[in-house]
Amino acid sequence: MKRQRVQELGLVIGSGTCGPHNSITDVPDVLVGHSTLIRGKGNLVPGKGPIRTGVTAILPHRGNLYEESVIATVHVINGFGKAVGLAQLLELGRLETPILLTSTMNVGLVEDAVTQYVVEHNPMAGISSPTPNPIVAECHDGFLNDAQGRHVRKRHVFASINDASSIVVEGCVGAGTGLTAFGYKSGIGTASRVITMKSGEYTIGCLVTPNFGRRGSLIMGGIPIGHLLEDDDNVTVEANSTHLGGGSIIVILATNAPLSSRQLSRIARRAVIGIGRTGSIISHGSGDFVIAFSNAYREKRSLSDSIIQREQFRDQLLTPFFSAAIEVTEEAVLNGLCMATSMVGRDDNFVEALPLEEVYQQLNVHLKG
Amino acid sequence: MKRQRVQELGLVIGSGTCGPHNSITDVPDVLVGHSTLIRGKGNLVPGKGPIRTGVTAILPHRGNLYEESVIATVHVINGFGKAVGLAQLLELGRLETPILLTSTMNVGLVEDAVTQYVVEHNPMAGISSPTPNPIVAECHDGFLNDAQGRHVRKRHVFASINDASSIVVEGCVGAGTGLTAFGYKSGIGTASRVITMKSGEYTIGCLVTPNFGRRGSLIMGGIPIGHLLEDDDNVTVEANSTHLGGGSIIVILATNAPLSSRQLSRIARRAVIGIGRTGSIISHGSGDFVIAFSNAYREKRSLSDSIIQREQFRDQLLTPFFSAAIEVTEEAVLNGLCMATSMVGRDDNFVEALPLEEVYQQLNVHLKG
Amino acid sequence: MKRQRVQELGLVIGSGTCGPHNSITDVPDVLVGHSTLIRGKGNLVPGKGPIRTGVTAILPHRGNLYEESVIATVHVINGFGKAVGLAQLLELGRLETPILLTSTMNVGLVEDAVTQYVVEHNPMAGISSPTPNPIVAECHDGFLNDAQGRHVRKRHVFASINDASSIVVEGCVGAGTGLTAFGYKSGIGTASRVITMKSGEYTIGCLVTPNFGRRGSLIMGGIPIGHLLEDDDNVTVEANSTHLGGGSIIVILATNAPLSSRQLSRIARRAVIGIGRTGSIISHGSGDFVIAFSNAYREKRSLSDSIIQREQFRDQLLTPFFSAAIEVTEEAVLNGLCMATSMVGRDDNFVEALPLEEVYQQLNVHLKG
Amino acid sequence: MKRQRVQELGLVIGSGTCGPHNSITDVPDVLVGHSTLIRGKGNLVPGKGPIRTGVTAILPHRGNLYEESVIATVHVINGFGKAVGLAQLLELGRLETPILLTSTMNVGLVEDAVTQYVVEHNPMAGISSPTPNPIVAECHDGFLNDAQGRHVRKRHVFASINDASSIVVEGCVGAGTGLTAFGYKSGIGTASRVITMKSGEYTIGCLVTPNFGRRGSLIMGGIPIGHLLEDDDNVTVEANSTHLGGGSIIVILATNAPLSSRQLSRIARRAVIGIGRTGSIISHGSGDFVIAFSNAYREKRSLSDSIIQREQFRDQLLTPFFSAAIEVTEEAVLNGLCMATSMVGRDDNFVEALPLEEVYQQLNVHLKG
Repeated sequence: MKRQRVQELGLVIGSGTCGPHNSITDVPDVLVGHSTLIRGKGNLVPGKGPIRTGVTAILPHRGNLYEESVIATVHVINGFGKAVGLAQLLELGRLETPILLTSTMNVGLVEDAVTQYVVEHNPMAGISSPTPNPIVAECHDGFLNDAQGRHVRKRHVFASINDASSIVVEGCVGAGTGLTAFGYKSGIGTASRVITMKSGEYTIGCLVTPNFGRRGSLIMGGIPIGHLLEDDDNVTVEANSTHLGGGSIIVILATNAPLSSRQLSRIARRAVIGIGRTGSIISHGSGDFVIAFSNAYREKRSLSDSIIQREQFRDQLLTPFFSAAIEVTEEAVLNGLCMATSMVGRDDNFVEALPLEEVYQQLNVHLKG
Repeated sequence: MKRQRVQELGLVIGSGTCGPHNSITDVPDVLVGHSTLIRGKGNLVPGKGPIRTGVTAILPHRGNLYEESVIATVHVINGFGKAVGLAQLLELGRLETPILLTSTMNVGLVEDAVTQYVVEHNPMAGISSPTPNPIVAECHDGFLNDAQGRHVRKRHVFASINDASSIVVEGCVGAGTGLTAFGYKSGIGTASRVITMKSGEYTIGCLVTPNFGRRGSLIMGGIPIGHLLEDDDNVTVEANSTHLGGGSIIVILATNAPLSSRQLSRIARRAVIGIGRTGSIISHGSGDFVIAFSNAYREKRSLSDSIIQREQFRDQLLTPFFSAAIEVTEEAVLNGLCMATSMVGRDDNFVEALPLEEVYQQLNVHLKG
Repeated sequence: MKRQRVQELGLVIGSGTCGPHNSITDVPDVLVGHSTLIRGKGNLVPGKGPIRTGVTAILPHRGNLYEESVIATVHVINGFGKAVGLAQLLELGRLETPILLTSTMNVGLVEDAVTQYVVEHNPMAGISSPTPNPIVAECHDGFLNDAQGRHVRKRHVFASINDASSIVVEGCVGAGTGLTAFGYKSGIGTASRVITMKSGEYTIGCLVTPNFGRRGSLIMGGIPIGHLLEDDDNVTVEANSTHLGGGSIIVILATNAPLSSRQLSRIARRAVIGIGRTGSIISHGSGDFVIAFSNAYREKRSLSDSIIQREQFRDQLLTPFFSAAIEVTEEAVLNGLCMATSMVGRDDNFVEALPLEEVYQQLNVHLKG
Repeated sequence: MKRQRVQELGLVIGSGTCGPHNSITDVPDVLVGHSTLIRGKGNLVPGKGPIRTGVTAILPHRGNLYEESVIATVHVINGFGKAVGLAQLLELGRLETPILLTSTMNVGLVEDAVTQYVVEHNPMAGISSPTPNPIVAECHDGFLNDAQGRHVRKRHVFASINDASSIVVEGCVGAGTGLTAFGYKSGIGTASRVITMKSGEYTIGCLVTPNFGRRGSLIMGGIPIGHLLEDDDNVTVEANSTHLGGGSIIVILATNAPLSSRQLSRIARRAVIGIGRTGSIISHGSGDFVIAFSNAYREKRSLSDSIIQREQFRDQLLTPFFSAAIEVTEEAVLNGLCMATSMVGRDDNFVEALPLEEVYQQLNVHLKG
């Protein structure tokens, strides 16, 4: 059975309306790009390979983000992670670079690459203009990948930004290349919902890197699929996510609704329910972060006015966004699992893809039941 | 069909082992007491009634808590609530009074009653000894109750503390008297899990006041029961939890495992998943707080030593506690629903109990399916 | 020497420009009211007296705050305090009642009184309209006052709100009645600064209840006045603030500048420097809270629009507000000390006023030096 | 007049007792190392130079920190900064690598170097052992340095760690090389206090990188030195710290007292007063972070026991640590200024050293006054 998204398997998550591509890029102007690194096989030679990793860039808009920042925030679900740039994001509530996702031990080099990228496009950054604040988040792909090698370099980062488009490839690409979730191969997943308000339609989109969960605990639409498939045998994979503290999920929430950073924080704090509904218990070693932004308003750095005029939703109206944030997170996680394909990595470690045929049958039994 | 707990309906939540009473009081020394106020009927006369409210006390131990405090913390899921005492709880990581739960607008009077209680047992409190820090949390019961009347008074608070025992009555008692969840009558619910570590057995218990959720969204063990029952008609109840910002849930997590306040905070932050798995989206107006304590160590106020000796789990070993915290929260919410009975309140507002017969049938279909 | 404010002693704090009354009420629409309770003398009879306490109300505007809330936040410097209402203030960034300051053990009764006040002016609050979120903060006045007696009642709270005006009485009035700071009698203090921006003039005002600090550590304008006066003898007073954990300061910052709650938080976090410059080290038992609000924008509860239009300063322009926040806090603390008068309280505990004559001489020596 | 520490100028900060070297390394086992990069002169050629930067390493002990971590925390005063590793530090309360300080845009490369350092000493890190969590904090030295060049590389980081010793060089070395504070040349500063408790003597030490403050606002021991020296002319320097958001200070607090991460956080939150007493207002663009650790207890990663035994101070006894934390921070900032020497940097930007002769005279007048 070919890889397909969870909706194609007949499973509907929640009651919301999907955007045209059920993707984070359904939010107007949002772009996503990947650089995927798959090279070598056999025994691990630290620093050499095999390589099963990559980088994913999420752009709130195609313009110069350093010059036209957007409102954003971060919520830390479980801080066992190495994301960079969070303190300034919280202090100012603004995102001024693309968001980059990559392999845990690679965050330093990717941060440096984003710094370089900003400098190349803004020659006065750090000279007569403030230093940029790159946002880089990570998951540990060390069960399959030579993580110590830190193979993502400047050119990969630049490519992921420059090639970003409104088409999001899911599965074993970019930062999703080497991921494992619930003992199955995981990867990039995305989803979206459209919310109709009196003032118009707004979209909330999500992109995730699911890399958590024990074999057997996967839940799909309330159905304990992991448990039902549990006679499978690839239990060694658990070592990855459980024992090494290597679990994690980064959730990117994007919207074009006019919201403040405080309001985005309220939305971001709901994502954990979407994660939890797929079976996660947010284990000790799982670095789970939610980064949320709204590109409804772009604040120009060079603005001469001291006062800005902004629209903002009333808090009373946020509940549909909360509901949608949960749905897109849950669905994006499941899409990441459904779209990923089996992979052999370092030391011939093997992670099988979620067996869609069996999943489909089980879903069928239970949904019709 | 008589009210029964969710396990008696055949639904098993999670994979953990329950304590002997599947109750927060399975944690040694923990006690719970209720004062229930049900008086009058008919039209609301603000300040007079009808009264459908109460107060619930949770005691980490039977001793003088002001003199022998326990380690504790609070996690705010959604701060649309009026809980008192949180700042000092966070700063010092210590709980020095019973925890009281009551009706939202009643928190001031209950705080005052706890202050009085501490003073009566510690005559120098606020004179030559520090002022006490009462912890009072709340849910809004105004759909059934004359909330403006603030009918819980000192004598009710004292009774709930003094009558506290290891037997926890669930349903429409104490702070659970006037609650509504998912459009059905709700009330006090509790649950527990026993965790076996190398160093021995530890218990984690939970008590909740579920007062949130739209009709139709209830999930039980992954099964969309709310949706399946939705042909029911009592939709007016939604006004309560949704429109008035009157939703809420207070989650009390208790354990006898040796944990620091930072570690308790990590556990407390998982409870939201248990709530979410019952169908909550943590709506705008839902004041959702988790208060967690460990009674493994009692810190004596009058201690002469400057240095204390304490045992503490290593963080690496917390994952089973995370899993258990999610399970007990989910199960306690469901128990609160299953054990509550239909109620008529002010202005003849009626909230029906969860129809257990139908629930049982639906569960049967799906669990066997 | 008659009591006078610190500027009248010749000491200028900082470089900013004061508002016309150097008072929190220089912020247009802000009002302050006190109820002062001084009754009885001699030995403490808990519950009876002597009484040296009170309540102070700060109103962001004269209108119905429940219907027209203002943007606000709180910053906790040291959470050893019992302030109520903070979680919702942080979650929504809105203040919907007057702020009340009082004696520590009295917060419950005052919270209840504010609830009553809101209900009387908004009969549907808690029925078809949300429950109100009273903000009450406190300092412990137990060295002079029968704190256990909790003598502030509804009528005092109502009077403080109803009598609020633009004239702020400083010293031993309202919540300042029984305070002690640096071993001297303390009380309500206030100050303001005017900030000139391209878009116009804005005012930031401050009101404080200083109740902290050891004898000998008072600093005025950088000059170690406490140390210079230290040959004084009233050392017993230290017991109050140091041993009992009875220290505290509540700082209220008001402005009419258009700011978000995140920006107000940034300003509020600077107040600690103003406190520190008067000699505080924020001791273990000092409950130090900063509540900040802007009345530039009033959000109507009954608004039908889902989107609001708001002006907001750019963060780049906040530094003058940071500077002013520090200055007004420092000056308000000193004004509270300079305007307070000696007082005899329970058990004939005596706290002398700051000896202004000597202070004046010492300032003179050092400022001219 | 040769550069000397502030005590040598006759100024005593606070009332505490200094450690033998008045240095962070008075805390037993703590080590500090610098790598200083000064190369080239003349016009800025981005990426080439001139170079005025460096890196400073602080080691809680000489052992393998990845295998034997210490208790630690971070407090963010103003989050306009790019420090990395904070989320995990907060979540687990543990420090498992040296702390590195460097130039803002260099944090990525330095993080990568620390990762490499850990891997070289722990070959299984990221393979069968968890990924390390490097802590890197920064100040912007772009007024003097070619910040875009990011000249600190692996070899400099390794050298700073490997050469770390108990002798702390102050002034224009390591991460202090290119700093400016109050319009004067600044650099590394350190200080310490010894606290005598019933249970023994404990040391608290501080190391800072002061890089903030407008010309004219420097305060030394309460005396407005900046104002008194203000007839000086080098006003252009203000551009650096004020306009570019390039201000900042990193405060490292070390102690050998047995404290939890929550208690360290309480201590860390006092440092802002020490900074404020030197004249800082924590301007918008100042990234001010406090990292605090205690090396009293080393937690072994490979420990087989699930429960650890730990000593811990009671919170009631923390006030002397609060006082000491404020004193060491204030004194370390002043030492950083007093020990730094004038420097010419990129584009011939010149920052003069604090004129010690004049400072000495002014201090003399006021201290004798």
